[in-house]
Amino acid sequence: MEMWLKESQIEGAAMTYKVKETLVRKKTKYQDLAIVDTEVFGRMLILDGIVQLSIKDEFVYHEMITHIPLFTHPCPKKVLVVGGGDGGTIREILKHPSVEKAVLCEIDGDVIDECKKYLPEVSCALNDKRCEVHIGDGIAYVKEHKNEFDVIIVDSTDPFSMAEGLFGGNFYQDIFEALTADGMFVAQTETPFYLPDTVRKVYNDAKSIFPVTKLFMAAIPTYPGGYWSFTIGSKKYDPSDVDTKTIPKLDTKYYTPELHNACFVLPKYVKDIIGEK
Amino acid sequence: MEMWLKESQIEGAAMTYKVKETLVRKKTKYQDLAIVDTEVFGRMLILDGIVQLSIKDEFVYHEMITHIPLFTHPCPKKVLVVGGGDGGTIREILKHPSVEKAVLCEIDGDVIDECKKYLPEVSCALNDKRCEVHIGDGIAYVKEHKNEFDVIIVDSTDPFSMAEGLFGGNFYQDIFEALTADGMFVAQTETPFYLPDTVRKVYNDAKSIFPVTKLFMAAIPTYPGGYWSFTIGSKKYDPSDVDTKTIPKLDTKYYTPELHNACFVLPKYVKDIIGEK
Repeated sequence: MEMWLKESQIEGAAMTYKVKETLVRKKTKYQDLAIVDTEVFGRMLILDGIVQLSIKDEFVYHEMITHIPLFTHPCPKKVLVVGGGDGGTIREILKHPSVEKAVLCEIDGDVIDECKKYLPEVSCALNDKRCEVHIGDGIAYVKEHKNEFDVIIVDSTDPFSMAEGLFGGNFYQDIFEALTADGMFVAQTETPFYLPDTVRKVYNDAKSIFPVTKLFMAAIPTYPGGYWSFTIGSKKYDPSDVDTKTIPKLDTKYYTPELHNACFVLPKYVKDIIGEK
Repeated sequence: MEMWLKESQIEGAAMTYKVKETLVRKKTKYQDLAIVDTEVFGRMLILDGIVQLSIKDEFVYHEMITHIPLFTHPCPKKVLVVGGGDGGTIREILKHPSVEKAVLCEIDGDVIDECKKYLPEVSCALNDKRCEVHIGDGIAYVKEHKNEFDVIIVDSTDPFSMAEGLFGGNFYQDIFEALTADGMFVAQTETPFYLPDTVRKVYNDAKSIFPVTKLFMAAIPTYPGGYWSFTIGSKKYDPSDVDTKTIPKLDTKYYTPELHNACFVLPKYVKDIIGEK
């Protein structure tokens, strides 16, 4: 028997992966959760049918969503991750010696539990003493905290159901208030090729609130279109203009200091989507 | 009835596209040729089951394989395309006013004929008076010409069957001799994520022959992994260190002068594949 996982990336196009074994599949309080072992990409976390990460390429997403803001801020001490229950972003955050506390606010405790069990390479830092795990709603958590975090990372699912409130609008205003005076946030903001309207909306929402708003890109094979956008809203520092010579060496597989500014240089069609010249 | 095209990108992973209509499907002398109209990506050219281009994203590949070398060379007059029977690369070459002649050497005349019929947006420049079409073997054609072309573009299919001889080795030596004294070549060299050995081989082969060898990347949604490599071998000019302020404005959807040098800044794992520090 051959088992193939089919991920509909957009109506009319789907990616399929040959599956060796289904390690867990369950309905959590919030979503359909599966971890499967695939031939090409190894173990994958799938939420509501959408691939969240694979063991083979998760390094791209987790490194880029973390090291771009954390190497832009001169001394990030307190960092919040909204979502990100797999722990990959926390793992990257804790590579930064300046970080004293990394809070993970994940709504679905089952994601954390299953990733700890089946994806230890990703979730490994969730038990670190500098990591504080909070199970709850990220929107409420951000609203309750003021002037507290140097960096907030919105490591969410897609904006189609549960995570819709994490894309733009009032949430970004609450984030602004939860950040310290020179803080910044970053969010994964989908693929400009399939979802140009989402990319435009979140960029404009961030820009209406933050003095510095920038978009950067990373190439992630298991994400639709293979090319993913991240939006940064910053109160002070420009993430696209960092003195890369000051960036210390870090053990990474995608991020490099040279790539730090280069990933903000956008293809013409992406610039057009966000209305930048 | 629903018709889906399935492209096996690598054993164990495939991309599928919902098909509206099959416009042509035939066995040519060399390969299985199909042009289908898909819901998401519009018309697609498929050779031996592998997507060569789609109307929606062909601009990325054709712009990047063309404008990077042609804006590196200070005055490209004569350009050769090996393969590229769809005409997209010729279309981009002829946007450069300095070009006096663009020769297309395509082994399979049926590709040209069917693309002229069903993909006019791509093939439109093949009838331009500056374009000379030669139906024949690219390896033989290159061998027969010495010191003639300012830029040679290897716009080939994958290195699995017919096109294998276009990836590295003696072919690059023949290209070196077919180029003028300050000439350069570029080749599409697959995805580093799925085919690291191919990327490494062609890079090292080029490096053993050309004084300047560089790799650049572009994000192409319909290509496996979504992230494609191109290798440049150059006799004189460094394509990654161009004075971008001198680049004239061109009507493009992906390429920008700012992106010219930035696309050579590689992720760590790609640098590791080609052994660059």
